[in-house]
Amino acid sequence: MGKLKVALLGLGNVGSGVYKILTANKAVIEKRSGYEIEVGKILVRDKNKPRPVDVDEDIVTTNIDDILNDDEISIVVELMGGEEPAKSYILRAIEKKKHVVTANKLLMAKCGVEVFNKAKEVGGVHIHYEASVAGGIPIIQGINEALTGNKIEKVIGIINGTTNYILTEMEDKGLSFEEALKGAQEKGYAEADPTSDIEGFDTLYKLDILTALCFNKKVPVDTIYREGITKISKGDIEIAKEFGYKIKLLAIGSEVDGKIEARVHPTMIPAKHPLANVNDSFNAIMLKGDAVGDLMFYGRGAGDLPTGSAVVGDIIAVAKNLNNEPSGLDLFEENNKKALKDMKDVESEYYLRLNVLDTPGTLAEISSIFALHKISILSLIQRGDRKEGMTDIIFITHKAKEEAIRNSIEAFENLGDKYKVENIIRIENFN
Amino acid sequence: MGKLKVALLGLGNVGSGVYKILTANKAVIEKRSGYEIEVGKILVRDKNKPRPVDVDEDIVTTNIDDILNDDEISIVVELMGGEEPAKSYILRAIEKKKHVVTANKLLMAKCGVEVFNKAKEVGGVHIHYEASVAGGIPIIQGINEALTGNKIEKVIGIINGTTNYILTEMEDKGLSFEEALKGAQEKGYAEADPTSDIEGFDTLYKLDILTALCFNKKVPVDTIYREGITKISKGDIEIAKEFGYKIKLLAIGSEVDGKIEARVHPTMIPAKHPLANVNDSFNAIMLKGDAVGDLMFYGRGAGDLPTGSAVVGDIIAVAKNLNNEPSGLDLFEENNKKALKDMKDVESEYYLRLNVLDTPGTLAEISSIFALHKISILSLIQRGDRKEGMTDIIFITHKAKEEAIRNSIEAFENLGDKYKVENIIRIENFN
Repeated sequence: MGKLKVALLGLGNVGSGVYKILTANKAVIEKRSGYEIEVGKILVRDKNKPRPVDVDEDIVTTNIDDILNDDEISIVVELMGGEEPAKSYILRAIEKKKHVVTANKLLMAKCGVEVFNKAKEVGGVHIHYEASVAGGIPIIQGINEALTGNKIEKVIGIINGTTNYILTEMEDKGLSFEEALKGAQEKGYAEADPTSDIEGFDTLYKLDILTALCFNKKVPVDTIYREGITKISKGDIEIAKEFGYKIKLLAIGSEVDGKIEARVHPTMIPAKHPLANVNDSFNAIMLKGDAVGDLMFYGRGAGDLPTGSAVVGDIIAVAKNLNNEPSGLDLFEENNKKALKDMKDVESEYYLRLNVLDTPGTLAEISSIFALHKISILSLIQRGDRKEGMTDIIFITHKAKEEAIRNSIEAFENLGDKYKVENIIRIENFN
Repeated sequence: MGKLKVALLGLGNVGSGVYKILTANKAVIEKRSGYEIEVGKILVRDKNKPRPVDVDEDIVTTNIDDILNDDEISIVVELMGGEEPAKSYILRAIEKKKHVVTANKLLMAKCGVEVFNKAKEVGGVHIHYEASVAGGIPIIQGINEALTGNKIEKVIGIINGTTNYILTEMEDKGLSFEEALKGAQEKGYAEADPTSDIEGFDTLYKLDILTALCFNKKVPVDTIYREGITKISKGDIEIAKEFGYKIKLLAIGSEVDGKIEARVHPTMIPAKHPLANVNDSFNAIMLKGDAVGDLMFYGRGAGDLPTGSAVVGDIIAVAKNLNNEPSGLDLFEENNKKALKDMKDVESEYYLRLNVLDTPGTLAEISSIFALHKISILSLIQRGDRKEGMTDIIFITHKAKEEAIRNSIEAFENLGDKYKVENIIRIENFN
């Protein structure tokens, strides 16, 4: 049986999960992988901080050089998160010809190209990052291995557990966004500063990685359209329900005629679609391959053990491939011919909630603005409820260009207090 | 770039799907795998039969020896189905040190041990069979690779598209079983002789393979409990709906305290569970790993291209692992210490529909029989509708042993015409 020594950089939530799995499931791992995997060293920031797991003090260090200079360590497992010092440590590990396993989505999204280029330059180094997208769900391996025979046409994911938990609570319990966020913070699903989750940054990083994998096009993260869930109201969720939809924060990537579409935003999806039934903090990713058709992976997107499961899977993948040339180092290509579609050219159906002055002629005026911008209305609801002379009208459009929607909204806003655009939510009907 | 020649045994539905993918997606496959894969020979039964795809006549043969004696062919891809001659061809290919990819569930379930033993004896031969379970869904790779760090505790699958289509039609359109089966046959989802699907044999073979993979215990197929969907009535589906359930044909495997449970039967599951929303001919498999928690894979379980996608994934997996020792040849262990739990010891909640003589004392008599066998009732429905003095009573039980249920049914039947057991359906609440 082969033996492998790994070093963990970080012993927080995920680090301790990895440690637990490697020790508790040692026998099963040896049986399935043919390798005995030992944690040789662990990097921590503070040696005196209480740890979530008991580890041998002799292997704990605060000095990265203890790990980089240890020739017995063949895999460095980066579980610190954030850009620095994670990036420097990874690049230095690669220079030392150590294989790298990382769970760091921000790093892979922002600096993945740099990491792969370094690995290509050095040669013979494997880079694995399954845990960086959707925790325990083996989506990266699925795309890179099992689906190799497919041209992937579309990827749509619910890949942030915090926002999915918040939206599920709003849906099931009729809570406001603020109430649901507070509950999520109390339960530990949302951080004290929830910006990265609720504003869609976390989802963005993961989509960026998926786009590179699926379409072989690494898009700079700041060029991808991103919209969080903070504007979603109880009312939007209720009306969505009436129309047979649920609201989810989706990451959407696709390739049509060599152009890449990539966007993150709250989306109405049919209540009967499998993605609509992904609730609480669960994640799911749906892929459309030209051969396999629709495929969905569902599971835990976070947590010490689910994420640890993906990290351990990666460690074993490295072990099994020690005799092979590293593959997948060319997937993150920034400068290939595929262009990113401008958001204003993206087509979608839309839900628009307008708060308008309830007088004769209003509907005619709205209709003429939509007509002017070639937006065709599929259905509308106007209820009787008035407040200070204003009333809500909800429109569902046929497919329209984002640009046309933006222009018509500008037109409404130019008409002054008579029209208030309360919310715009894109609709995905999966056809 | 490496080059590999494969031979296809069979050019039917799946064979032509594989051929189409390998030719249409040649560029994408080379980019992702680093291998140029060429179909070197194709075995057909009849050279004059019209073919679903155009292939070079020179590579078509009716003689297996043309393939086995061709040293350039390194992978034999068996897509004929059935036990013989598939098995002999595979064993002979292994003897010739050719790697094997197969989509043959019946063969792997019935003769998998023999195939693996031959591969171990010969040495250096890789065996892949992703397409044998759930078509395009990469479940076998998921278990063998990404989830290696997990002890798998449970696997529950909807792994037969035909029966799932029939049950979905019954549910959505209120059809009887016979009507839905006829529709499935007209649409090509069910065969003229639908026995293998509707009686659960197809599901059984796939569960048998999953059990070997998940729990490292190959159970002889004929010892696994199997029940098809032919007894499910419109009425059962309606009542299930009232109780908040849907009826699905499930394959259930689990390991508790070193004992393996494996069974195939129609099952009521909560309507909100992700598996309940797997409709039409789609397949899905839910796994519970001790680290990863609940994980579900959803997709097309059949069809030329989805199944072809899995076969091509396997071919590429072989290509990428040519330098590695074959792994997974020990998973199908028949004689390890784990025992298969006897069906009569399996515990479940149950739905029982009894047709009983509507007279005073009936309910008391039923209750005393249940009490005698220590079956505790969670809820019951008796509607007013009588027919020839008889009425339906539906019981939902708390968890009970299968043996107790069987004994109480025998007790009812011993009481003569007063009691008719219309149906018994197990309930899975996933807790």
